[in-house]
Amino acid sequence: MVLDVSSIREDFPIFRRYPDLVYLDNAATTHKPRVVIEAIRNFYENFNANIHRGLYDLSQKATEIYEDAHEVVAKFINAYSWEEVIFTRNSTESLNLLAYSIGLNYLQPGDEIVISIAEHHSNMLPWMRIAELRNASIRIVRVDENGEMDYRELENIVNEKTKVVSITHVSNVLGVINDVKKIASIAHRVGAIVVVDGAQSVPHIPIDVKALDIDFLVFSGHKMLGPMGIGVLWGRKDILMDMDPPFYGGDMVKSVDIAIRDSNIVKKNIVLNDLPWKFEPGTANVADAVGLVEAIRYLIRIDLNNIDLHEKELARYTIKRLEEYNEKITILGSKDIAKKSGIISFVLQGLDPQVLAYMLSTKNIAIRAGFHCAQPLHRYLGLNKGSDRISFYIYNDYSDIDRFVDAIDWILKELGI
Amino acid sequence: MVLDVSSIREDFPIFRRYPDLVYLDNAATTHKPRVVIEAIRNFYENFNANIHRGLYDLSQKATEIYEDAHEVVAKFINAYSWEEVIFTRNSTESLNLLAYSIGLNYLQPGDEIVISIAEHHSNMLPWMRIAELRNASIRIVRVDENGEMDYRELENIVNEKTKVVSITHVSNVLGVINDVKKIASIAHRVGAIVVVDGAQSVPHIPIDVKALDIDFLVFSGHKMLGPMGIGVLWGRKDILMDMDPPFYGGDMVKSVDIAIRDSNIVKKNIVLNDLPWKFEPGTANVADAVGLVEAIRYLIRIDLNNIDLHEKELARYTIKRLEEYNEKITILGSKDIAKKSGIISFVLQGLDPQVLAYMLSTKNIAIRAGFHCAQPLHRYLGLNKGSDRISFYIYNDYSDIDRFVDAIDWILKELGI
Repeated sequence: MVLDVSSIREDFPIFRRYPDLVYLDNAATTHKPRVVIEAIRNFYENFNANIHRGLYDLSQKATEIYEDAHEVVAKFINAYSWEEVIFTRNSTESLNLLAYSIGLNYLQPGDEIVISIAEHHSNMLPWMRIAELRNASIRIVRVDENGEMDYRELENIVNEKTKVVSITHVSNVLGVINDVKKIASIAHRVGAIVVVDGAQSVPHIPIDVKALDIDFLVFSGHKMLGPMGIGVLWGRKDILMDMDPPFYGGDMVKSVDIAIRDSNIVKKNIVLNDLPWKFEPGTANVADAVGLVEAIRYLIRIDLNNIDLHEKELARYTIKRLEEYNEKITILGSKDIAKKSGIISFVLQGLDPQVLAYMLSTKNIAIRAGFHCAQPLHRYLGLNKGSDRISFYIYNDYSDIDRFVDAIDWILKELGI
Repeated sequence: MVLDVSSIREDFPIFRRYPDLVYLDNAATTHKPRVVIEAIRNFYENFNANIHRGLYDLSQKATEIYEDAHEVVAKFINAYSWEEVIFTRNSTESLNLLAYSIGLNYLQPGDEIVISIAEHHSNMLPWMRIAELRNASIRIVRVDENGEMDYRELENIVNEKTKVVSITHVSNVLGVINDVKKIASIAHRVGAIVVVDGAQSVPHIPIDVKALDIDFLVFSGHKMLGPMGIGVLWGRKDILMDMDPPFYGGDMVKSVDIAIRDSNIVKKNIVLNDLPWKFEPGTANVADAVGLVEAIRYLIRIDLNNIDLHEKELARYTIKRLEEYNEKITILGSKDIAKKSGIISFVLQGLDPQVLAYMLSTKNIAIRAGFHCAQPLHRYLGLNKGSDRISFYIYNDYSDIDRFVDAIDWILKELGI
């Protein structure tokens, strides 16, 4: 194996607690190495303070730590500047923030937003909401039988009315990696803003926002070894500077000047703060930013290229082993490892996905069953009960897959399938 | 003293690290007792999982923990049901969520939103934003020379066009406790929705949302010994059930059914999830909810009535000691302890508030200087450079105030004021 899994597992307290756990639900959330948990604890014990507005040492140190966290994230995705990194709660909040920002600043009646049928609800429903609000339309590009985006259809759909193209980098169901650079080039031809949902890519493959030539990227800390309360919205500085934020509160304005007569506001002058602060209202979650920084450092030490190779190898091995059951098990989407990350969804003929997941849980194997927040994709694929999904990370190895396949074998025999 | 401060301080690792620290910036953020820090760590080490959609043990346990957290918060504020408790990132996010919810569901052109001049930017700017979007108006009630709300003006302003009255429970500058029950009764006469910003009250005085007869309450975990990444929006179930949420994503819908023709959506059926989930899109921050639960338990053990008495006593003592300098120091707002919580803002004649805070920091005394995110209030009071603010919590005692006043004395002498 590319990675030394047994030494990696030593870094994760949860595997000490549950040495027998086969955890294959990493697309939902990942476990946390000791360095991340300790970083949060260390912050609260030694540096806790509210940032920016305090002149005392603790507050200044916390401010420094928090600004550095933006810098670490910026370098990790090769952003142009740390000011382009906005901390949010998670990818979902990033996408809602972005949909309202773009929607309220730019969308006109008749404008179009392009998404794909394979989007997570988080990259679908916020755009539908804002489209409704602005009398804009949603256009949906399909995927082919391999789960790969229909780029020809995308070219046909994108037109001068297209203001946004928002696409997942890696499908959270199919694991298929979209050619984001190609998508960006198609979208930019008509001047559309390119948004990439990186929730399933940033933790698993090296990302370079300059090379991809995209405008926005969102991802979640908890899916990349980080804590649960932090996510990222990255955006190009020129667009971020041009947009008014949709959410307001403390620390995102330089000054608020209002004049009142008879209880009415007769003059109002609100000067917004600089980037990234104008998009980060309220008390910052410094503790979780610190946790995310440690997660990123851990991933960099392992190297994203190695993580990608490791997961591809696990995917290859899984697909090979599941082929022993190819009359009973259908893998969704492409089996071409070169185009996939470490997510494999499947259906076991005649068996409710929930039942399969439940039976696996009795053997201490954690997988996910259902629609994986991508119900339109499942309906499009004709899967009205959803699917079962396994997803890998750095602490998984062949033995996890063997345990999983052996349990599938046991279930097939048990149920007489 | 009502509280055994020296034993309380033992529970806070930060005071072990900085035994000499006089921390008087609790209105900005509070420190965390060991039980809170340990609860977060324990969650990540032993229970970490994404909730609701997992059938395996870890996920089910995490789901249980997270649902219980809603219950603990509900009981703490005497809510009607745990389903009324929505976890957010902080008060600011709660208020933005609420402003968009109420705005997009109910506000019509010409409607009015009433706030006070003493609001934090977080309870002012989101309402201004949504008013702009819906062609509604903001009406602003003033405070009198004591910083107490002008209830007569409130009665005059509230009329049949008033749809929302959103008022802070305790001013984050003046420390004055508003008579929320009276405000609610005035607002309810015309059927307006009553929103209370509890960021500075929930951590310090006992709150009973039924007794106050309010409709919504927001507060932040980090200002009440909890972690930085969690806040609360409480709302009456009947209103929450009636409103569509403004933010969308995973876990807040039961089903998404769309039909597509020529890449256009020709049919759409989105069934929202039950309360509170329909207002909590995306992966839940279970770790910080667990931390908040421990913070609440800690506060309940000490008893909010005792905390209130303790802070009132500290405020009384501070005001008495500062009166020695009453020609040089002006305390903002009422000095009537019965109407105040443990926040005291002041200006030292002829001295920039920032300079004072900086000089205090050289003596290890942490206070805050500036507008405290309440710039309209400061301008209204004629304070164009802001003020200095000290704010207490359970780990402060007389000696902190003595250190603070002695340092003020030193500064006066040093600067020849």
